[in-house]
Amino acid sequence: EDRKAAAASDDPYGNEPERHPALKLNSAKPFNAETPSTFLAENYHTPNALFFVRNHLPAPDIKEKDYVLEIEGPGMKGMKLSLQDLRTKFKHYSVSSVVQCAGNRRFEMSEQKKVKGLGWDTGAISNAEWTGVRLRDVLLYAGLDEENLGELRHCQFEGYDRDATAPYGSSIPLRKAIDRYGDCILAFKMNGEPIPRDHGYPVRVIVPGVVGARNVKWLAKVSVAKEESPSFWQQKDYKTFPPNLNWDNVTDKEFQKAESIQELPVTSAVTEPKPRTAVTVEDGKMVVKGYAYSGGGRGIARVDVSCDGGQTWQVANLNKGPKTVESGREWGWSLWSAEIQVPTGLKEVEVICKATDGSANVQPEEMMPIWNLRGLLNNAWHRAKYTVKHE
Amino acid sequence: EDRKAAAASDDPYGNEPERHPALKLNSAKPFNAETPSTFLAENYHTPNALFFVRNHLPAPDIKEKDYVLEIEGPGMKGMKLSLQDLRTKFKHYSVSSVVQCAGNRRFEMSEQKKVKGLGWDTGAISNAEWTGVRLRDVLLYAGLDEENLGELRHCQFEGYDRDATAPYGSSIPLRKAIDRYGDCILAFKMNGEPIPRDHGYPVRVIVPGVVGARNVKWLAKVSVAKEESPSFWQQKDYKTFPPNLNWDNVTDKEFQKAESIQELPVTSAVTEPKPRTAVTVEDGKMVVKGYAYSGGGRGIARVDVSCDGGQTWQVANLNKGPKTVESGREWGWSLWSAEIQVPTGLKEVEVICKATDGSANVQPEEMMPIWNLRGLLNNAWHRAKYTVKHE
Ligand SMILES: [Mo]
Ligand SMILES: [Mo]
Repeated sequence: EDRKAAAASDDPYGNEPERHPALKLNSAKPFNAETPSTFLAENYHTPNALFFVRNHLPAPDIKEKDYVLEIEGPGMKGMKLSLQDLRTKFKHYSVSSVVQCAGNRRFEMSEQKKVKGLGWDTGAISNAEWTGVRLRDVLLYAGLDEENLGELRHCQFEGYDRDATAPYGSSIPLRKAIDRYGDCILAFKMNGEPIPRDHGYPVRVIVPGVVGARNVKWLAKVSVAKEESPSFWQQKDYKTFPPNLNWDNVTDKEFQKAESIQELPVTSAVTEPKPRTAVTVEDGKMVVKGYAYSGGGRGIARVDVSCDGGQTWQVANLNKGPKTVESGREWGWSLWSAEIQVPTGLKEVEVICKATDGSANVQPEEMMPIWNLRGLLNNAWHRAKYTVKHE
Repeated sequence: EDRKAAAASDDPYGNEPERHPALKLNSAKPFNAETPSTFLAENYHTPNALFFVRNHLPAPDIKEKDYVLEIEGPGMKGMKLSLQDLRTKFKHYSVSSVVQCAGNRRFEMSEQKKVKGLGWDTGAISNAEWTGVRLRDVLLYAGLDEENLGELRHCQFEGYDRDATAPYGSSIPLRKAIDRYGDCILAFKMNGEPIPRDHGYPVRVIVPGVVGARNVKWLAKVSVAKEESPSFWQQKDYKTFPPNLNWDNVTDKEFQKAESIQELPVTSAVTEPKPRTAVTVEDGKMVVKGYAYSGGGRGIARVDVSCDGGQTWQVANLNKGPKTVESGREWGWSLWSAEIQVPTGLKEVEVICKATDGSANVQPEEMMPIWNLRGLLNNAWHRAKYTVKHE
């Protein structure tokens, strides 16, 4: 015990929480692990223990009684709220919302042409029901005057996770933070339980429809500001680049100019059976499952599945889960399934899926036209290959 | 004169307005005509006389003094407003907003596999600055209680244009109509002038980011309701279908099930030089121009241009015009231009453009995976072919 404590004091990663052994490890320090493929489409709300984990730094270990959330901004009352304040001063809301890492499906993109970043397969995405209070209500309580925003354009977040010099930080457009129908919440429950430590105990800001990196865990501070967050992760990371820029020709200026990722594009994946495995096909029939998701609350209109390289398509069945918001926006994903015909004699089959969102946006066929040096936002058609045994 | 009047009384299309001779006629009765290709990227706000026209029925001829707008809904005060009421009772707002027909670029899709509908090229889209009053303000004035919407989910519109049995009609989600940041307006000015007759004089509802068909001209009535508009154009048209359905296998049930088009997906086109013409290239350089647009206020993040079939890409310059809304959403289009290198010796060149929107949605490469029986929402990469003379 003493030796363990001593080790902990040296290693910033010496006091990490327990993790479910089924999580697919991507990096140990910081801890990054994805939901295993075959669990993704099994639960509309991903169980907390199997929810993918994307940490940038050591996981803070915060006691409820010590927790303080600071709220500030020009012209507002500076304010410090305890967890009890959050729970008792504001109305509670629940939102089904996906969290997806910008690097989800980077592995496939890197196979086409190498990119930099964690090699996520299709499991850097999960969906939970989050319960808490509206960010909007807290900002108005702290004195934000929504009819006179002046030059205020951004809502910055800081976490209690930090490196030697600075905390984790990010920001979102202020409009998203205060939109009556934006459904941003300061969550203290995840699927009905206190938020587990790996997911931001005691409070995580949930920014539905927006990239995971802005859904700051272990939330320490909310600031209304003229500028985006100055943090590394807002300024130098989580940005997209055109396919003509690579690590040899990209400049600091390009990094400054590039837009911060906010809303996510439409995507989908085949998750069952597990891709790159052998499957047994009975009477030429095979059931495939997966997820589909689009940012901005756009919801999924349709998922098409093909097993002839995209020559013909079949429409999948959708499970959209319970609706928990009055805005009519779909912040959760759609799980899908389809029974497909595998021609007899075929020894290998490639199942392709592509989704269309509520705004009629579709996924691109290929990866190279959306290739970018950080391997972010790969939403090309997903192709799952199987070797087939007919019975 | 007498003969002309007699003809007018027989022909429902006997009293149509004058039109600019440069408009590219698509159908005479009802009048449908597009903005000529080479004018599209020349003005951030399309001049009124060259703004594309998509009429479904004869154009009403309404006198200002006779104009009445009816507002109604369960639990609301029934209300009739004159043009003077609209102008004087509510605050005025201006919004740069694209109107795009769902059938824009249908011609290209029909070339791949025949679809039904008007054969629009790339000019069934234009952009104007619209001035009027917020639909939100008018609905709240008429007694809509936004905190108690109950089962009210839709905002229906009727126009003064009608066939033998019913007026033109459509609807949008109620949330869009009342969103503080949705920027829907009842417009009485278009680019600073009274709205021309072909564009809805005296009042057109502008629903930024949403398909043209819901931006009802000659607005007669606004109704808050539980259901979508019962009109033909909401129920039987302006819907999307999967590529596996065609006119031989589509059923009434499929038409009922299909979702009404609302927000538009990301698109772009090369408009200058005019595609399918001969161009003279000096020192291997050629300047190309076009537009890019995405629905939902997402704005355009980037336009990429290629003249080697998509192997390499170059980033175009964007003109985003003046910003006129505080919401930060971009309801207008982005005009773009790029100077490209045309390899000497090449006798034909194909210029491809593709846009990425603020939510990282991209255009698909090909048309067949998004083919649909009505030929709607074709947003595949645009390919403009030229024969080249080098100088
Ligand atoms: Mo991420
Ligand atoms: Mo249209």
